[in-house]
Amino acid sequence: LLSLYPESAGIVTSDGESSQAFKVHKGMGLINHVFNADSLKKLYVSNLGIGHTRYSTSGISELQNCQPFVVETLHGKIAVAHNGELTNAVRLRRKLMRHGVGLSTSSDSELITQLLAFTPPLENDDTADWVARIKNLMNETPTSYSLLIMHKDIIYAVRDPYGNRPLCIGRLIPVGDMNGKGKDNSETEGWVVSSESCSFLSIGAEYYREVLPGEIVKISRYEVQTLDVVPRPEGDPSAFCIFEYVYFARPDSIFEGQMVYSVRRRCGQQLAIEAPVEADLVSTVPESATPAALGYAQKCGLPYVEVLCKNRYVGRTFIQPNMRLRQLGVAKKFGVLSDNFKGKRVVIIDDSIVRGNTISPIIKLLRESGAKEVHIRVASPPIRFPCYMGINIPTKEELIANRPEFHDLANYIGADSVVYLSVEGLVSSVQESIKARQESENSLKTQKSRAGKIGHCTACLTGEYPVELEW
Amino acid sequence: LLSLYPESAGIVTSDGESSQAFKVHKGMGLINHVFNADSLKKLYVSNLGIGHTRYSTSGISELQNCQPFVVETLHGKIAVAHNGELTNAVRLRRKLMRHGVGLSTSSDSELITQLLAFTPPLENDDTADWVARIKNLMNETPTSYSLLIMHKDIIYAVRDPYGNRPLCIGRLIPVGDMNGKGKDNSETEGWVVSSESCSFLSIGAEYYREVLPGEIVKISRYEVQTLDVVPRPEGDPSAFCIFEYVYFARPDSIFEGQMVYSVRRRCGQQLAIEAPVEADLVSTVPESATPAALGYAQKCGLPYVEVLCKNRYVGRTFIQPNMRLRQLGVAKKFGVLSDNFKGKRVVIIDDSIVRGNTISPIIKLLRESGAKEVHIRVASPPIRFPCYMGINIPTKEELIANRPEFHDLANYIGADSVVYLSVEGLVSSVQESIKARQESENSLKTQKSRAGKIGHCTACLTGEYPVELEW
Amino acid sequence: LLSLYPESAGIVTSDGESSQAFKVHKGMGLINHVFNADSLKKLYVSNLGIGHTRYSTSGISELQNCQPFVVETLHGKIAVAHNGELTNAVRLRRKLMRHGVGLSTSSDSELITQLLAFTPPLENDDTADWVARIKNLMNETPTSYSLLIMHKDIIYAVRDPYGNRPLCIGRLIPVGDMNGKGKDNSETEGWVVSSESCSFLSIGAEYYREVLPGEIVKISRYEVQTLDVVPRPEGDPSAFCIFEYVYFARPDSIFEGQMVYSVRRRCGQQLAIEAPVEADLVSTVPESATPAALGYAQKCGLPYVEVLCKNRYVGRTFIQPNMRLRQLGVAKKFGVLSDNFKGKRVVIIDDSIVRGNTISPIIKLLRESGAKEVHIRVASPPIRFPCYMGINIPTKEELIANRPEFHDLANYIGADSVVYLSVEGLVSSVQESIKARQESENSLKTQKSRAGKIGHCTACLTGEYPVELEW
Amino acid sequence: LLSLYPESAGIVTSDGESSQAFKVHKGMGLINHVFNADSLKKLYVSNLGIGHTRYSTSGISELQNCQPFVVETLHGKIAVAHNGELTNAVRLRRKLMRHGVGLSTSSDSELITQLLAFTPPLENDDTADWVARIKNLMNETPTSYSLLIMHKDIIYAVRDPYGNRPLCIGRLIPVGDMNGKGKDNSETEGWVVSSESCSFLSIGAEYYREVLPGEIVKISRYEVQTLDVVPRPEGDPSAFCIFEYVYFARPDSIFEGQMVYSVRRRCGQQLAIEAPVEADLVSTVPESATPAALGYAQKCGLPYVEVLCKNRYVGRTFIQPNMRLRQLGVAKKFGVLSDNFKGKRVVIIDDSIVRGNTISPIIKLLRESGAKEVHIRVASPPIRFPCYMGINIPTKEELIANRPEFHDLANYIGADSVVYLSVEGLVSSVQESIKARQESENSLKTQKSRAGKIGHCTACLTGEYPVELEW
Repeated sequence: LLSLYPESAGIVTSDGESSQAFKVHKGMGLINHVFNADSLKKLYVSNLGIGHTRYSTSGISELQNCQPFVVETLHGKIAVAHNGELTNAVRLRRKLMRHGVGLSTSSDSELITQLLAFTPPLENDDTADWVARIKNLMNETPTSYSLLIMHKDIIYAVRDPYGNRPLCIGRLIPVGDMNGKGKDNSETEGWVVSSESCSFLSIGAEYYREVLPGEIVKISRYEVQTLDVVPRPEGDPSAFCIFEYVYFARPDSIFEGQMVYSVRRRCGQQLAIEAPVEADLVSTVPESATPAALGYAQKCGLPYVEVLCKNRYVGRTFIQPNMRLRQLGVAKKFGVLSDNFKGKRVVIIDDSIVRGNTISPIIKLLRESGAKEVHIRVASPPIRFPCYMGINIPTKEELIANRPEFHDLANYIGADSVVYLSVEGLVSSVQESIKARQESENSLKTQKSRAGKIGHCTACLTGEYPVELEW
Repeated sequence: LLSLYPESAGIVTSDGESSQAFKVHKGMGLINHVFNADSLKKLYVSNLGIGHTRYSTSGISELQNCQPFVVETLHGKIAVAHNGELTNAVRLRRKLMRHGVGLSTSSDSELITQLLAFTPPLENDDTADWVARIKNLMNETPTSYSLLIMHKDIIYAVRDPYGNRPLCIGRLIPVGDMNGKGKDNSETEGWVVSSESCSFLSIGAEYYREVLPGEIVKISRYEVQTLDVVPRPEGDPSAFCIFEYVYFARPDSIFEGQMVYSVRRRCGQQLAIEAPVEADLVSTVPESATPAALGYAQKCGLPYVEVLCKNRYVGRTFIQPNMRLRQLGVAKKFGVLSDNFKGKRVVIIDDSIVRGNTISPIIKLLRESGAKEVHIRVASPPIRFPCYMGINIPTKEELIANRPEFHDLANYIGADSVVYLSVEGLVSSVQESIKARQESENSLKTQKSRAGKIGHCTACLTGEYPVELEW
Repeated sequence: LLSLYPESAGIVTSDGESSQAFKVHKGMGLINHVFNADSLKKLYVSNLGIGHTRYSTSGISELQNCQPFVVETLHGKIAVAHNGELTNAVRLRRKLMRHGVGLSTSSDSELITQLLAFTPPLENDDTADWVARIKNLMNETPTSYSLLIMHKDIIYAVRDPYGNRPLCIGRLIPVGDMNGKGKDNSETEGWVVSSESCSFLSIGAEYYREVLPGEIVKISRYEVQTLDVVPRPEGDPSAFCIFEYVYFARPDSIFEGQMVYSVRRRCGQQLAIEAPVEADLVSTVPESATPAALGYAQKCGLPYVEVLCKNRYVGRTFIQPNMRLRQLGVAKKFGVLSDNFKGKRVVIIDDSIVRGNTISPIIKLLRESGAKEVHIRVASPPIRFPCYMGINIPTKEELIANRPEFHDLANYIGADSVVYLSVEGLVSSVQESIKARQESENSLKTQKSRAGKIGHCTACLTGEYPVELEW
Repeated sequence: LLSLYPESAGIVTSDGESSQAFKVHKGMGLINHVFNADSLKKLYVSNLGIGHTRYSTSGISELQNCQPFVVETLHGKIAVAHNGELTNAVRLRRKLMRHGVGLSTSSDSELITQLLAFTPPLENDDTADWVARIKNLMNETPTSYSLLIMHKDIIYAVRDPYGNRPLCIGRLIPVGDMNGKGKDNSETEGWVVSSESCSFLSIGAEYYREVLPGEIVKISRYEVQTLDVVPRPEGDPSAFCIFEYVYFARPDSIFEGQMVYSVRRRCGQQLAIEAPVEADLVSTVPESATPAALGYAQKCGLPYVEVLCKNRYVGRTFIQPNMRLRQLGVAKKFGVLSDNFKGKRVVIIDDSIVRGNTISPIIKLLRESGAKEVHIRVASPPIRFPCYMGINIPTKEELIANRPEFHDLANYIGADSVVYLSVEGLVSSVQESIKARQESENSLKTQKSRAGKIGHCTACLTGEYPVELEW
């Protein structure tokens, strides 16, 4: 769907004692290119550090924009990693510059870092009250940000009051002997914080809990402690990005107590209810639409069959200028398992259609290889609006749902039929089990009350932004 | 299973007129690293060329071993691309050296090239009879090789009499306008030859036919012509590498008239007959075992469910020295979809087990994430013997089937049970549809008689090599 | 002597209209590695730009420290390139941080840039008075800095009141036709500013004049205009770095109206007066000591003869752990022209001796190749003190003049004798023609009076720093 | 003058025991790029090895052409390094190909290697008589080649009967302790062979002797032994390349008993006799013409003064399309020491003029910087003819001596006068001390008689080639 190649990465570590002794390594490109044995060795000064991987978003791709940002303040160095995009960045930049701060990048992350350094009152400011500074920052800007702020031996994990971007905590499990046996699992070896829980297993950690919307969590070697929860304006529901479920997150990630894979399968099931079709088999555009396809197939009672196999070693596919080249590109990316569908009526589940440039040659390929009918079912609603909260969505003009072709989409992409999941269907697929759990679990009451009313940001689908946008 | 990363690549093109004017570009590494716009532009002198991609096999990894090999002979330059490994290479090398030829590499491909240059009679040899030279070569060495030999404007495609390595021909389809419309599809734009048919679609070609065992095909701009078919010794069956079906080939490739995917699904079905198990769901180690898993699930009547999702951007996984690191490595490569199998009895279909180093931590991961039972079914027989015909198989000592742990394999890898497909089961899965077709299709009679008795090389599974090995 | 390999480079260009539209390209390494055709094309938006090359100095070698620094201020972006080191940097950093500015690097150049952004009064500051800001900066810090500050279509060139670091202006000569003919040479095509005049010829410019100590020069497309000259404290002489003459500058550079080569030759002549020796020939350690050697030879009346030839393609020489490896390293760097000095008494002129690790194996090599006597004459006084004004001098302990071996230096390095130039001899060699010119040229009176009393910084030789150092 | 950048390098080492165990490392580019600590470690299997550095010559620049060549023969592997170019290569290639050997490169070095492998009689050839094979090779081709041939624990050093290319032997001096003291210098640690003696000092060796024209030397761990001296045809003088003296060799190299520097200085002296000029000072185009300039200045009694200083860090200079860019390029490469020659009449000694593209802008630069007159004296005769013996000389059309401009060269390059050294002057400068030595030293008689009549190849100057050229 969207370009998701990491374009920069950085790690800052602290020795936990001196407020000056940060080790920093950042670079452009894939993580494996940025870090090697040497740079990792250089960084290894303690068990304390924060990192950041940047994907294509609105910031200009330059090394200078690489996170984490490190600045020296009157109270020592702080390092800040930020995920999100401030809806009032322009006003805040002007405010800082009026105060005499020169800003060296266009990134919101530098802005946040300087706001933390700057936050008044600064006269007679001989102690650094970082929590006050963080709350000050949160009062200046409502959304969207998940933050990690490191100072000496403390990491502060912060989620904006709307909870727009994810952030969760994992617990490092004791290793025991080299075969994983021994040691008591109930002990805690340390803590990790991440946007996505899926990364925990691979570093020997287990999912502990989410940082709540508005919550400021203090993480030290042995302790995870809630310092405060900054509330939203009265009546505003939370606004976790629904697009994380639909597209960005890995299927094995957990948000709001549910596995992304399960949400996607429910979307497929819901789609089967909303848009059934008489066909012989259900298949997927591998791999991201597979959970929805399995859900659709199961709900319909049709067999799930593979019609395309993904080719290894295919590099990034670029937008090709004509149908012929697009078709060759698709045939390079996917192998066609023609014996599996020759003479059959095929339902293809895709997770989204942005420009139609991929699905269209796939349909042509399937027909030429013998498919009798090709029906497209999209397991998410059409994207129509820009995101100002950190997701790099194509321009309004590029989105197929805003183009004239959309009125006769099946014909345009060459399908026998095409139906999208409704917004309501998506929201209910996402919220169904959250609501069920809220009702059944009394024990969650406290947290629920602190987290406030549950909602989701559907701005890219509906144009309803969780806060008023400032320019 | 085996290391399959391309380690070198090369292309040689001919302007089709001068016998001296080859353009050569070769390099180590992935194709995308070896070739760029500049090198491709340099190579583009005509529509005639041969290329080669080398994966890890027995030859020493040095640029000098990169194919295609080009040598100047009395009759102009020839370029040779070779897939396979000669079973009597040592004797042939000695023969050439005794004749006074210095060999600059350890590769069979140089050996073949020099044999073509050398083949007597050379006195009064003023015309180059390349077919005679190729037949001479084929008489010197029975297997295994698929060859492309380019001279001026002709490419000779050759498969050894046993047909051990694959080779097939594709037909370039006329393009028409840029959206693929127009032009008459019955015309032929040109010909392409490849080890695997799966590559044809992505270059705008369609599958035409296989080169038969022993066949010498002459390919020119407008024509594909059989020059001769060199027979095997009386009574010897053909010996196409069964491992191509099991592991090497892409699932959308076609060998001997059948799609590899279909063979793999039949292996899964056969495995379900040979080794059923009482369980709640069937799953796969993505992605290569998925066709077998779907076949197994269907035959058993159990639901097919995903338990692991493959993580993008994971580099090569190296052999880790202990269980703990192996488990972290597996958790980095695969996400665990725990909600899909918590409390369930799981059957995992794998395509093969070489060392047990991957399946073992997967099983542990599934158990720790809530699987009640984990049964392993392997959709191929255990590998026990070395291959001397071009496949880079681990040493006999490394193969798990030759180790003491094999006697209690389920316990060793931590599974509730583990069963392999039988050799007979594999052979019947492979030959079932070939035989059916042979019987039903009278039109194939001629070809069949020329191709001789159908067999497959199962040497790595049974130790029965198709020809006697020479040292 | 000292490590002089460029370690980073950067260029910022302005389109001269928008205060936002800077193009920036920076990188680590040699200029040729940092810039290529693509990056230069990207930068080419107008004829306006500033650049910076960084050699090893006290700042940490990281991309973040690369100059020019660009920050956005309330009045648009400024880009700043800086040569030098602030003697009161620690106090100024603290002042800025107390004001709430987070500093992201340890470099004085960021400090200067933020001071320019910050300089109060900022309330109701709706117009940007950059000259006031620059003067404010100059009042905050006395030395050492030469600055280029770019804002929209203006570049400000600034030298600190002591004139410690060089800065001079060149005039672009009209090109005429492609063979340099045509066009009137009296026109001016534009202006260039550089630390060293030697670079002008190679870009088609000619030397125009130096920026004076304390001078603020405004450079626009058609005009070079002095805005102000900030004076030194009453009675303080100027303090141009004498080391530029001795070692750093290229021999064809012009400082204070004299060619560096001429100063070096005068040093050789002065050395011949101070430390003559009975010998057969005078030679040099090529290439930096050659002017002094020719001066020495001429003054003594001895023949100038080459005894060593420099080997091309020798990479950086590293400090070798023992005499044997040092000698092999020297023999790799220099060829020995033994026939030129066999049986002769040789005087070798070197420009300086830092550790003695180079001259010592050279002497050994000359003796082994037949030199009867080897006398060393050093065309500068011994370095004894650290520099806090931008020159990266080895630690006090490493400097040979501070080590016990210095008391018996000839013996330590294996020479028959060794004598250094006196500080007075160096100062008089440097100032001789400046004073002569000041006396003779009445036309210079104005400038002279504005520049104040002429002096030179000899801190690394004498420990007398031009200003009090702050910590 | 000519492009002299190394374009490939290679080393082959032998463990001295097995005839199979060569270690090979080759690559394109500068030696420092080709070899690093890892590759050198890999190569270090014994004290036995041969290497090769290739500069731009007639062979196509591809890795495949990199030397040393290694081939496996019936009697084990041999590695061959070759300097030179065979005058009858075309006939020899055809001969080998007729025998059935495919040649994979266009290089003479592969040809030589295959000729050594091939040399009959091969029937019943159970012992490898390498000397017979080498002599056979020498009978097949008269010139030009210097060879190193390694087999097991022996290296054969061979120079062609005309001695066209250099080859000399050095003796490794015992190291003693790490400061070079101790051990008896009369022992021998081992032997090294090189084209140029200048490399010996830097690896701890001393010059031992030249390999004579036609000589086959066997070098083992402890011994240097002449196996045979293959004579030239009756009456042919030797033909060492005179261009090595003029341009290629390093000034500290020794050929035929004399230092190259001394020959060049004599050329300058001879030039002063042949072409004196009334002037104020003599200077050089640094650095290669400096010995000739010092010789010229001394002979004339004029002062030697530097007018240009070479700029460090200037990359390769490319041929620029117009005078303006050439002049900027020259001004980038050289600094102009204008104070040294303002108002003076300057004689510039250059070592050669190939196209006039460098000297012409230098003259313009000197004039613009104040030179009153600029006279050019070239310390070698004009090159007029191609070299077929290994030197990469520009095409006849590019050589200035073959162009119409040559008739009015002073005017073309903008000089007040220009004079070349005569061929006779060059030959006498080269042979003067050789002849003197031959006459005085009776002890050399034996060697002299074996080496035959002394001559030099002046083909590029006179068109008189030492042997008839075959096509």
